[in-house]
Amino acid sequence: MKIVVLVSGGGTNLQAIFDAIDNGSITNTEVAGVISNNPGAYALERAKKRGIPALCVSPKQFASRAEFNDAWLAAAQSFSPDLVVLAGCLVVISEAMVHAFTNRIINIHPALIPSFCGKGYYGLKVHEAALERGVRVTGATVHFVDAGTDTGPIILQKAVYIQEGDTPEILQRRVMEEAEWIILPAAIDLIANGRIQVEDGKVHIADYTFGTI
Amino acid sequence: MKIVVLVSGGGTNLQAIFDAIDNGSITNTEVAGVISNNPGAYALERAKKRGIPALCVSPKQFASRAEFNDAWLAAAQSFSPDLVVLAGCLVVISEAMVHAFTNRIINIHPALIPSFCGKGYYGLKVHEAALERGVRVTGATVHFVDAGTDTGPIILQKAVYIQEGDTPEILQRRVMEEAEWIILPAAIDLIANGRIQVEDGKVHIADYTFGTI
Repeated sequence: MKIVVLVSGGGTNLQAIFDAIDNGSITNTEVAGVISNNPGAYALERAKKRGIPALCVSPKQFASRAEFNDAWLAAAQSFSPDLVVLAGCLVVISEAMVHAFTNRIINIHPALIPSFCGKGYYGLKVHEAALERGVRVTGATVHFVDAGTDTGPIILQKAVYIQEGDTPEILQRRVMEEAEWIILPAAIDLIANGRIQVEDGKVHIADYTFGTI
Repeated sequence: MKIVVLVSGGGTNLQAIFDAIDNGSITNTEVAGVISNNPGAYALERAKKRGIPALCVSPKQFASRAEFNDAWLAAAQSFSPDLVVLAGCLVVISEAMVHAFTNRIINIHPALIPSFCGKGYYGLKVHEAALERGVRVTGATVHFVDAGTDTGPIILQKAVYIQEGDTPEILQRRVMEEAEWIILPAAIDLIANGRIQVEDGKVHIADYTFGTI
């Protein structure tokens, strides 16, 4: 399976994918390219170090959002990927792109959808909201991207407990370490190996026990 | 600490409280009385078997909701409890009762608040909604009751993984066994032993690690 990874920042989830490929927990998968909307994203360096094509497609290069959306989609399509992976990518994916890759775009969200998701919930804001509500359990979700924000079929989720004294920054890091870096590679491996079925907006994974990773 | 337990049905959460008192995982706590809105609730039998006063206060005995609310509150107050525990209690608690017992009423909800909670989410409907959304993680929440529905300060939560083939009934039972029967007694013990502080609508528990029970 050929994947293209879309990023906006440091690329720790991209690194988790590289590590999982190297240690064999993702099989049958090649990262064909990495695309960032942000020229300063360290994720681009991570890709270059592995000799993987790394592109920047910034909204600032275009006169309109529509032109950027076209270029963003074209950049992804240029790698002919089987799967598009949003790995800490803050770009809102256009409807045209969702339709071009139906059930072939996945995203990692740093909360247990349907909690703390939707418009306005991204990055640290997600963890600020969880702490503000005083929940004890949060986590991360890998889901297929549909036309809504964080509304697509859920593939995997993993719970993370909040502790007294957690700040948004501490919690963000713990959710990455304990959940995101585990379930995003696991979802890619399941897709690469034909384990995932989507039916009536719900994901089915035969012979799989949830909560064991 | 004297508690009164309000119930509507079989009373498995009430039984979990009795068991936790018997095995010493709840200390410094006495169940002073059990009150049901439903005369057929098996929870009343569980109380009687232990020699604990068991009352039924049914809305059908009253001409109006206001009169029932007054009688329901009076019944709880008749035991002079330090804490009111809603253990599978489907009665909507009146504002007068919330004010009479500020931060002294706790409820168990069979989901990870703020997911699948609020008006209309009770009993099997909670689990139907979780399965319909296709989430992988659900759980239970113990929280203080305020004037809203499932909006009060959260004390404890515990995650439960959903599995392929789960029905609402299977999931309801697993959430009880793996979460409700554990965190409801644990929350009572923490309160009985002065471990809980409520500040700015959030619960703090000093020297406690979440996710270990």
